[in-house]
Formats: sequence, C-alpha cells, structure tokens
Amino acid sequence: MSQLRVGLAGLGTVGVAVVQMLERRAAEIEARTGRSVKVVAVSARSKGKDRGIDLSGVRWHDDPVALARDPEIDVFVELMGGEGDPAKAAVAAALAAGRPVVTANKALLARAGLELAEVGEASGATLHFEAAVAGGIPIVKTLREALGGNRIERVSGILNGTCNYILTRMADEKMAFDTCLAEAQRLGYAEADPSFDIDGYDTAHKLSLLTSLAFGSKVDADAIYVEGIRSLTLADLEAADELGFKVKLLGVAVRTEEGIEQRVHPTMVPKHWPIAQVSGVTNAVAVDGDAVNLTLVGPGAGGAATASAVVGDLIDVARGNGGFAFGLPVAALQSSPRAPMQRHEGGYYIRVAAVNKPGTAATIARRMAEEGISLESIVQRRPPRPHGASASGPDDVGVILITYATTEDAVRRAMAAIEADGVIVGEPQVIRIEKD
Amino acid sequence: MSQLRVGLAGLGTVGVAVVQMLERRAAEIEARTGRSVKVVAVSARSKGKDRGIDLSGVRWHDDPVALARDPEIDVFVELMGGEGDPAKAAVAAALAAGRPVVTANKALLARAGLELAEVGEASGATLHFEAAVAGGIPIVKTLREALGGNRIERVSGILNGTCNYILTRMADEKMAFDTCLAEAQRLGYAEADPSFDIDGYDTAHKLSLLTSLAFGSKVDADAIYVEGIRSLTLADLEAADELGFKVKLLGVAVRTEEGIEQRVHPTMVPKHWPIAQVSGVTNAVAVDGDAVNLTLVGPGAGGAATASAVVGDLIDVARGNGGFAFGLPVAALQSSPRAPMQRHEGGYYIRVAAVNKPGTAATIARRMAEEGISLESIVQRRPPRPHGASASGPDDVGVILITYATTEDAVRRAMAAIEADGVIVGEPQVIRIEKD
Repeated sequence: MSQLRVGLAGLGTVGVAVVQMLERRAAEIEARTGRSVKVVAVSARSKGKDRGIDLSGVRWHDDPVALARDPEIDVFVELMGGEGDPAKAAVAAALAAGRPVVTANKALLARAGLELAEVGEASGATLHFEAAVAGGIPIVKTLREALGGNRIERVSGILNGTCNYILTRMADEKMAFDTCLAEAQRLGYAEADPSFDIDGYDTAHKLSLLTSLAFGSKVDADAIYVEGIRSLTLADLEAADELGFKVKLLGVAVRTEEGIEQRVHPTMVPKHWPIAQVSGVTNAVAVDGDAVNLTLVGPGAGGAATASAVVGDLIDVARGNGGFAFGLPVAALQSSPRAPMQRHEGGYYIRVAAVNKPGTAATIARRMAEEGISLESIVQRRPPRPHGASASGPDDVGVILITYATTEDAVRRAMAAIEADGVIVGEPQVIRIEKD
Repeated sequence: MSQLRVGLAGLGTVGVAVVQMLERRAAEIEARTGRSVKVVAVSARSKGKDRGIDLSGVRWHDDPVALARDPEIDVFVELMGGEGDPAKAAVAAALAAGRPVVTANKALLARAGLELAEVGEASGATLHFEAAVAGGIPIVKTLREALGGNRIERVSGILNGTCNYILTRMADEKMAFDTCLAEAQRLGYAEADPSFDIDGYDTAHKLSLLTSLAFGSKVDADAIYVEGIRSLTLADLEAADELGFKVKLLGVAVRTEEGIEQRVHPTMVPKHWPIAQVSGVTNAVAVDGDAVNLTLVGPGAGGAATASAVVGDLIDVARGNGGFAFGLPVAALQSSPRAPMQRHEGGYYIRVAAVNKPGTAATIARRMAEEGISLESIVQRRPPRPHGASASGPDDVGVILITYATTEDAVRRAMAAIEADGVIVGEPQVIRIEKD
C-alpha cells in the first residue's frame, strides 16, 4: 500500500495533536484508506523546542514555503495561521505544485480562499478546510457534500467558543462581562488581547466561509455586518431570560429578496431552540434547507477537536475524495448582491437609560410610532448598577422596549430621534431577536 | 460532461421526492459534480399510478432485479424496502455487476449489509446508505469520513421519530400512551401496525449500522437488547420530569471492557443534555470520540429529508467519492464480543405498585440491599390512575426507587425476589438512567 506523505507547517497545540493522532490511529487510518498517512517533513518557528513528540526521522524546513515545495511530500498541512504570508505563500506554493492542502486557517481563507481555490483548480490540487470553521464539527463536509441536494435558505451558528463561554457564565452565574472575560483569559479560553474574538471578527471569518458553501456564492467577508459582545450587560441577559430568550453571539447568513444578508451580532434566541442550549466553549451550526433542517453541536476549538478535523481531511485526501473547495468551481460561484443591514427585518430588544422626568416614556413611544414600529412591550425599571458599568446618573431609569418585526433602518432612525430629544443617557442597547 | 444514469427502484414518497429533487436541483448538482445526474430507468409496483412526476422517456422495468442489471444505468437506487428479496436480490445484482448502489433500506442492511458490502468490494462497486439511518442527518458520512481519526467510545441516538413523537406529546400534554399513539397514526407518523417502531426494532436496525461504523465491528443486529415504549405511563414521564430527566427511546452502543454493549430501551436523560431537548418526530445522534463529542439533530424521516440523504449519496457517486460501506473492508471489521445486558451498569428508575400493608417498603428496601443496590431515593405515593391503565387494586400504592449505579443483573434479581415476596402487584417498571 502506498504512503501518503504529509508535510506539516506549524507545530503549536493543533500541529502536535495532529502528529499524535496520526501515530495513535495509524493502523485504523491505513485500514480505512488503504494508505499509511505519515508526517515526513515539518516546519515551525523553533526547531529545538521540546513538544513532547518524536520528530526524529522527520525532515525539518525552516521555511514553510520550502516545505510546501518539498517534492517528497504528497499533501501540505498548514497550521501556522495568519491571513498573509508565509501561510498564504506556502499554501499557494503547494497548490501550484499540484499538492493537496489541508488548512485550519479561517483568516487566510476568508481573505484569499477564492484565489487559492483557483490555484488548486488550475493544477488539480484540492483544498480542504474542515478545521477552519467550528473546529471538530464537520459542517464543511456537511454543506459541501451531504446537503448538496438542498437549496439552503439560512445558515447560522455559535462559531466562537470564547464569546459563548463568557455569555454562558454571565447568564448562569450573574457575573459581569469584565469578570467573565478575565475568567476566560485565566482558563486559556480567551487571548490576552481578546478583541478579535469578542468583537466578532473571528465569527465573521468563519461565517464568510459557511455562506459561500451554503449559497454557492463568492466568499465576501467584507459584506458582513459585525457587532461584538462588549456592550452586553447582565441586565440585558436577565431581561432576555425573563422574556424567554438566551443571548448568543450568532453568525447568520440568510437568503433574502435583496441578496444574501450576512451578520454577526448578539442575538436573542428562544430558549427552546437547540442552539440556545449550547453552553460554554461549545459551538453549534444550524442549517435550514428546503429538504432538511439540521443542527450540529460540538467542540469549536482545542487541539484534539481541531486535529480531528484536520485528520478527517487527510483521510479524504488519502481516499482521493476531492471536490471543489467551496462546493462549486470558483467560476461558478455567484457574486450575490449584499443585502444591506439597514434592510434587516426582525424583532428588536432595546434598552435605554431614560432621563427621569415626566413625558420621557411618551416621547420614546412616539418616536417609535413615527417610524411605524409596533411595540410588543415597554417596561420601565431602575437598572441594576454593576460597579463602574453605567454612565447614567442616579435619576435615570431603565426602559426596555420589545418591538414586533420591523426594519433595522426604522430602529436606527427612531433611536437617533430619541437621542436628539435628549431623553436618554448614553448609548441605547439594541439586540436583534430571532424567533420561529 | 458525462451523465450519471440512475436506475431507481421504488416510487413511494421517497422515490418521488428523489426524482423531484434531482430535477429541481439539476443545474446545481451538475455544477458540483461535473456530471448531470438523471433518472433514466425505474421500477415500481404499479406502472399506471399517477405520482405527479413525469416519467416519459424513462425506461420501465417490472422487475427491480432486471432494472439493477440494466446495462444502461450507472448507479442503482433501492427504495423498495424489506429485508429480503426482491430488494436484496436487486442490490446484490447491481453490486455484482460493478454498479454502485444507494439504498435507504435499514432492515436489509442490518441483516445482509456485510454480505452485500463484500459483493461490492469484489466488483469494486460502492454501497451508500446515508438515508438508512436517521434520515436527513448525515451521520453515516460523519462516522465513516469526518470522524475517521477518532476512537469512538459511545454512539447513541433518538433514531425513531414515531416513538419520540409519542413520548413528546405524552410529556408535554399529559396524555396517555394510547391516545398519543392514535394521534400519531392519525397524522401519518405511525403505521396502522405500529409494533415495528414502538417495540424498538426500527431503532435496533439503525443502531446496528451505527455501531459497525463507529467501532469498526461487524454488523450484529441480533446482539442488541431491545425494549420498546409500550409500557411507559404518564406517571413515569411525570416522575422523570420531577427528577430532572426526560424519557427518550434511545439506541445506545458503548465500548466496554466486556465488548460492545448495544441496547435499545426507554432511557432517562438529564434535561440539559442536547438530546433531551429533541422533540416530536425529530431525530438526534450523539457521538463520543476521544477527540470530539458531537450531537447532530435533524429530521429522521419523511420524503424530502430522506431524498436529501439519497441525493447526497448520488452526489458522492457522481464525484467518485467511494470508500468502504462500513468504513473498513469487511474483512477488517472486528467480531467484537457482545457485552451482555446483564452486565450493564448504571442508575435505575424502578416503579412498582406495592401492596398497601405494613412492612412492604421495608421488604422492598431490604431486597435491594441484599443485592448491594444503593438507593438514591425511595418515594411512596398513590399513583394516578389513567382510565383502564392499571392492574393494581384500590389499596396499592406507587413506590418509586432511584438507584445509584448498579448492574442490570442485580436489579433483575432484586425484582424477582420482590415479586416472589408477594408485596407488589403487576410488573415492575424499570427505566435505565444515563447521566454525566
């Protein structure tokens, strides 16, 4: 039986886990594929570092691009990360040389996925990236292969474990955002600079890939409306709970009459939805097709889970299971019009700190009515004041509005009018609601 | 681009849905696979019947085996059902002729899957059966391909929509089993003779296939311990609710030191488990691997969902994505020892109708202690008496015991002793508990 010779660039947590999994499961993988899948060459930043794996007999390249061009490898695995070079140059070099590539690099694919897929199409090399979206959840394979007969209308998910961890702890333990973020950092679930995760950009990268796979459209990360979770307060999560919702940072892509709407923002979802039950660092993806509605729940990150996805891709390479990176040839992917966020339709949760004087509630209600927004409820209460969290003075009161379905545009105009009226203090908190 | 010529046997709900999906999605499927996938020949019971699809230009075979042997087809799709001939003969004929087969027939595969897979291996024809397990949920592909790097420890699921529909309505609407079954029949979710579904055999067929895929073992449907849901009462579901559980009919396969334990029975699962939230006819499968724990939730039956799985398999065939039917060559599948149900370990819910006389509770508790069974709780109460549902006399009282982890063997011996003591009326209700 022939060997599949793997060149692996990047020996961090995931790279090491891939080496270990390929060793631990060598016999089974060979039985499955008819080939022995073996790491024969590697590249990483520090050659001398002890990583707890035996690299004797494995060729070392200082330059990942040289590794990608090594004629003695059959497949290139890119686990370096980073949206630019050397990751991009190395992936391009391997594909140009006709060598299949397996990568976990969502930032790279969100920026250059189409360009790289085209390089592969030209040379006949396949590009695999199961690990780039939702870690150990096989959503790429599911969209690219299993659901190929469906017309997909919507794909959405909890795609960032850091955010879901923070939101889960806030809700379950009544803790403030800053406290939960610090906890996540202490436990290694959040980076020292957490902005990429908590401001929604990581979710947006992954969503851009799911959108392309689901709708047969060109990857368009710049078309995504992005809001993170920094502004969420315990008051919002508690209000959501009382209303029968959980707050999740969702990435959502929907086919609309205007085009494809892609958005990342905190979202209120009904508690009974499977996705609402997903807690901690776990990820989930829901796909609504014309034939099948599917929810997949599993680990979104971590060495073992990500390695599982990389090894699954390597098994596909070994079996000769190729296919187009985004399901279709790049030339057949549509340049779908972007549905602008202003046209988004749905219900809204709006919390404002209102000045405590006669007529304030009436002013707010009138401004909403002027924009044709129907209110499902309006509740006025003194907000809880977590230490240092509020800019509102001692005489302000919290007002929570729940709207019936309306448009983003109407809500923004109403908020601007209310701010101009001088009846609220600070920024209004606006959370979109998704319902059955 | 070359055509993939499909021969389709069986034009019931699913067959018609497959024809429609292939027509509706023809352009997309051709773009995905580089081939046009077209039904060119069919076989069904009644030639004249109006099925709402246009079969002009499609060859008709009265005999499905003749269709399977038709040299002008490239792939044979079997949607007739039935564990014996003509389905088996037709599938075998197609495989023997080197033609890939796509089937939704779990009964056939549970009985003859290995034999048929070997026929395919000999001729080089692949055997695909995504639709046979959990309908539109791509669990076959997930186990066979995506999780190939994992050592799987456990696979379990809600695999029968009829049972889950009945249990959901019983719990949500406080309705008796018989009423819910009648409702399910009225709505087309249960057959006129529902025994195959509600006695657990349908779940067992599907579980036998999942077990083989998960553990690399030979399909062994006869090794499965099977209990259905007929004996469940509203009292059991209400008691479960109070204790923090939901009752689901689960198929479970676990790797144990004794071998592989395969069982189908009503199970109490903690309410917060994703699988506990799955309601109505929806199915779910949970996979516990050494790298990834995954839960997939989706439609387990119905024309569109099943057609989605069949078309997904056809797309794989068109793309040349083959692989072994059960992940490994049949010769490499292990004959794992069966872990006997008597050795099963776990917690138990036991409800008995106890004779209302002094010393009864003490007798029951003593018999449990004699078998080394520790009780987490013992609650004595007068049971609700749904019309005609109870054999216990007016003076009997319900006793509910919750045990700590013990063995099936100990529970059975204790129950036998208690029955011999004459302190209970009728059969004890025993429901196994699964916990974190």
